[in-house]
Formats: sequence, C-alpha cells, structure tokens
Amino acid sequence: MLRLGVDAMGGDYAPEAAVMGAIQALDCVGEDVRIVLFGDKAAIEGILDREGCAHDKFDIVPTTEVIEMGDHPAQAFKQKQNSSIVVGYGYLKAGKIDGFASAGSTGAMMVGAMFVTKAIEGVIRPSISSPIPVVDGRTALMLDVGLNVDCRPDVLQQYGLLGSVYAETVLGIENPRVALLNIGEESTKGNLTSREAYELMKNSSYNFVGNIEGKHVFSGRVADVIVCDGFVGNVLLKAAESFYPIGQALGVGSNPFFDKLNYEFFGGTPVLGVNAPIIIGHGCSSPKAIAAMIKQTESTVRANFTDRLREAFK
Amino acid sequence: MLRLGVDAMGGDYAPEAAVMGAIQALDCVGEDVRIVLFGDKAAIEGILDREGCAHDKFDIVPTTEVIEMGDHPAQAFKQKQNSSIVVGYGYLKAGKIDGFASAGSTGAMMVGAMFVTKAIEGVIRPSISSPIPVVDGRTALMLDVGLNVDCRPDVLQQYGLLGSVYAETVLGIENPRVALLNIGEESTKGNLTSREAYELMKNSSYNFVGNIEGKHVFSGRVADVIVCDGFVGNVLLKAAESFYPIGQALGVGSNPFFDKLNYEFFGGTPVLGVNAPIIIGHGCSSPKAIAAMIKQTESTVRANFTDRLREAFK
Repeated sequence: MLRLGVDAMGGDYAPEAAVMGAIQALDCVGEDVRIVLFGDKAAIEGILDREGCAHDKFDIVPTTEVIEMGDHPAQAFKQKQNSSIVVGYGYLKAGKIDGFASAGSTGAMMVGAMFVTKAIEGVIRPSISSPIPVVDGRTALMLDVGLNVDCRPDVLQQYGLLGSVYAETVLGIENPRVALLNIGEESTKGNLTSREAYELMKNSSYNFVGNIEGKHVFSGRVADVIVCDGFVGNVLLKAAESFYPIGQALGVGSNPFFDKLNYEFFGGTPVLGVNAPIIIGHGCSSPKAIAAMIKQTESTVRANFTDRLREAFK
Repeated sequence: MLRLGVDAMGGDYAPEAAVMGAIQALDCVGEDVRIVLFGDKAAIEGILDREGCAHDKFDIVPTTEVIEMGDHPAQAFKQKQNSSIVVGYGYLKAGKIDGFASAGSTGAMMVGAMFVTKAIEGVIRPSISSPIPVVDGRTALMLDVGLNVDCRPDVLQQYGLLGSVYAETVLGIENPRVALLNIGEESTKGNLTSREAYELMKNSSYNFVGNIEGKHVFSGRVADVIVCDGFVGNVLLKAAESFYPIGQALGVGSNPFFDKLNYEFFGGTPVLGVNAPIIIGHGCSSPKAIAAMIKQTESTVRANFTDRLREAFK
C-alpha cells in the first residue's frame, strides 16, 4: 500500500480545489494507493458529500490551522503546530505517509523539507525542479526553478546528479543527457558561475553533454535534464508556462506540446535532495492540477526515488 | 538623406541573403533612405544583375576581407582592415553613414561599437537589447540579451534608462513602464544583484514599475521595458524565439503574436549606449530578416535615438 499525503488546505482555492483534485486523482492512481487528506475534516467531508464520494475513499487527518501565503514560513511552521502542512510533515517523518504534496505555502513546504525530512547526506542544497514538455512528446526536467537563486558552481554540478537520478528513475529515461543552461554551446561561454560549473560537470559521474542554449530547452534535441540556477530557471519556466494562456487567448487551439505548458498538466514541482518525496503545487492550483500533483507524488514514491538518490550520493 | 550602412558579407548566407534582404528593404524604407552596402563588389553586383535590380539603387563600398564567425573578434578587427565590418565602422565614425547593421560576427561588431563609436559618456556598459512582441500587438524591449552576463546593480539601473529612451523614441511608447525581471513581484524577492538593483531603480528618473515575473514578459500587462542581465535575457529570448519553429512544426499556423517570435520579424538587436545606431542581426539571417534589420536601423536613425540618449545621460 502506498500512502500519499495531500494538504487539503493548500492553495488559493482550498479546500475546494484540493479535495476536488483528490477525488479526480482516485481515477488515475493505482489501486494500491491510499490518499491521506490533511485539513478541516468537516469542510472536506462536506465537499465529499456534495460530490457523492464516500468518506472511506480517503483517510482524513483533521487539522485546525492553515499556514497562509502571507505568513512568514519559518515562524508559521513553528507556531501553527496543528496546521495541515506541519501535521503532514509529522506523518511523513513518522513513515505514516510515503510522500507529501501541497499547493500551499512554498516557503512553509520548504521549511518542512529542510528541517523535518532534511537534506540527504552529501547534498549541499536541495532543489525545486520542474518537469517540462519537449517537442517529441517526452518530458525533460529543469532545475533549479526558484529555490536557489545564487547557486555556487558545485551546487549546479550536484543538480546534474539530482536531475539525472530523477529523470532515470521517475521519468524512465535511460542514461539521461544532462546539460548546463548557458548562452552558447562552447565551454568558454557564460557567466563566471556557469563557466566554473561546466568544468566541474565535465568530470561528473552522470552523462554530461555540455551547454544547452535557450533555443534547445524545449526542442528535446540536446538534453533530458537542464541545470540552471533558480533565478534563470524560475524566469524561464514562468515565461514558458505563460505561452499556454497566451496561445489559448489567441486561439491556437489544442496542441500536444502547448497543452503541456499548462501548469495543470504536471501539477507540481518535485523537491529533490531531501529524505522523502515532496511535491509543491502552484498556489493557483485547479482540481486538475491537484490531481496531476498527486499522480506525480505517486510516480516519485513508486520509483523509490529517495532510496535511489541516497545511493547516488553515497 | 538618411544613409544606412549594411554589411553585405555578414551572416551565414552572405552575401546572397544580405543583398537579397537589402533589395527587399528598398520597398519598406523611406524614399529619403540610401542603403550603403559594404562588401565584395563583383559578388554584390552579380546578385543585383540576376535579380534585375539596377546597381544605382545602392551605394556599394568595395571591401576585400571578411571577419568570419570563427575569427577572434578583437584580433580580426585589428588585422582585417579591409573587411566589410571595419570599413563600415570607418564610414560610421566619419559620418558617411548614419547607422550600421550587420548579421556578421557579433563579437567584431561589438569591438567596433566599443572602440570605434565608443560608449556615450556616462554609460557604464552598453547593452544589446531585443524588441519582443507582447500579446496586445505592441512591442516591448528586453535588455540585456547577451552582452553583459555578470551585471552589476548600477549597470542594471542604467539599462532601465537606455531601454526607456529607446522605447520612447524608437518604439513610440509614451512614458514607458520599466520593470526588473525577477522571480517575484515583491521588492525583497530575487538574487543579490536584483535586490540591489531594485533599490537603485526605485530612485530612477524613468518610470520604474517594480519587478516583473517571467509570466508577464510577453503579456504586456506590466512593462514596456524589461531589464535583466545578459545571461537570463539571452536564455529567455532564445527560448521564446524557439516557440516559433516549434509552433510551425506542430501546425499551430499563422498567429499575429507567435509570428513575431520568429527572429526574422524584428531582424536584429540594437546596441544601446554607443555613439551611433548599430544593429546586429542573427548569424542565420534570411533575406526577410536582413530587410527587417535594415528597417530597424532606419527607425533608430530617424528617431535621433543617439542624440536623445546623449541628452538623457547628460
């Protein structure tokens, strides 16, 4: 039995969107999966009743507090001991759930990741990554997408390994090609950090294929794992995601590539380098996005990603 | 009479594409414009003859050398004194042309910009900028897009002014909104450089509207001028441009926004902060792109952009 923890109070439209998403997820996760909802029990059951969904489809862990987007993450984590996020992390640490997903406060989720589950030994800095679509229909992984905005070169080097293990185990890509996001293909191109990172990555255990320019991030021709600092990764990811609503507004219509730029498609960004599967969803998550986030959590748990990562960093 | 210098030997498909582009440009520039071609006279005239285009439609300045993409820019600039780029810069400095455009070696073009035309007094570091389309049909400006990959905060602050003057005089946008590209809207967001730049930009003479996230770069809702360092600008620009061929390959069809992501639409990136209008085109420029680059050079010259910039930095 896989037990996936979901923050029913996380996100701008919680608990409504979170619970609706969990109901949708029932249809796409395996039969051996049990979804554990953390949140306001009465509110959750009210939505389940309205949707005609039996309560026993889920485990519900009642919580009474919510860490709001405006709260100071570290302070709120300490003070709101009965919040859905803090209680969820307690379950994760105790092994009562196998993974935890939330569209709530990214800051509070990261506090939990860093101080409750903690970084895997040997990992200098964990990362928030994002699956991205590439033209031929496959999925690539970009990291970091917003956690570490001033990366040291050795951190970028490690991101290559974090991403490589994720791409191999969770995305199922054999011997994934890892590239460094840069302004040119040549090893001498880039800023101070990227040039130093290139030299370190050249001597890595993973399949480093060199620099990748912006034009090839979504082509899929160069890399399966795109390594960058969290500043450029965040800007690029958000800009790329914006092409979905832009395309919709301009009547581009349905398209297998552009549809996956919709943030709802992957539903969340996996935190890599910590001792448990943790997925963070967009604050604005719709039910569809929540369901995708839960599905992603399932894939990460099922792949034994955390164990594989620990081995890689031994 | 406006005299626009064009490097007929610049670009992967020169002189063919460059001369064909110059012929196309005849139809879209003003009647008071004279295009001055620098390059292999016989080759240029051969193409004109083949196309049935009278030689006297252009001024041709014969040159015998070409700075290749693989040449070391500074060395080549010194050694190839009879190259189209070096001779072009000589004409520009002597006032025999009013602006200069090339799809040749970006490095050599920048050597000329920095050491022949030189930076405007008060400009710490010139910038390469790029017009970008926004959803409502207008054009915004992003800078830097690849020249300065390790920007100091005071350089970013100045980029706001460079961009603001360009947007106002060349793009015709009144009181342009200038924003700093960042990972969040709040002033405390970002990396060390962007947080410091924000504080400086807050107290600028131009219309600083705060941070802009990746998702709003192409929406047009937040800013007309997007300031960033050359690393993130280059990556973002190239990724955005890649959505045009991706869209074409996936059958998105013609669309007023996506069509402008095609590098051919604007045709080049203006160098801002130097004492003359200089436009650099893509190495792979097609005739259509060359024509657009020439048109852009015309707009920059016609707007008296260089004078306006000098005034702004007084």
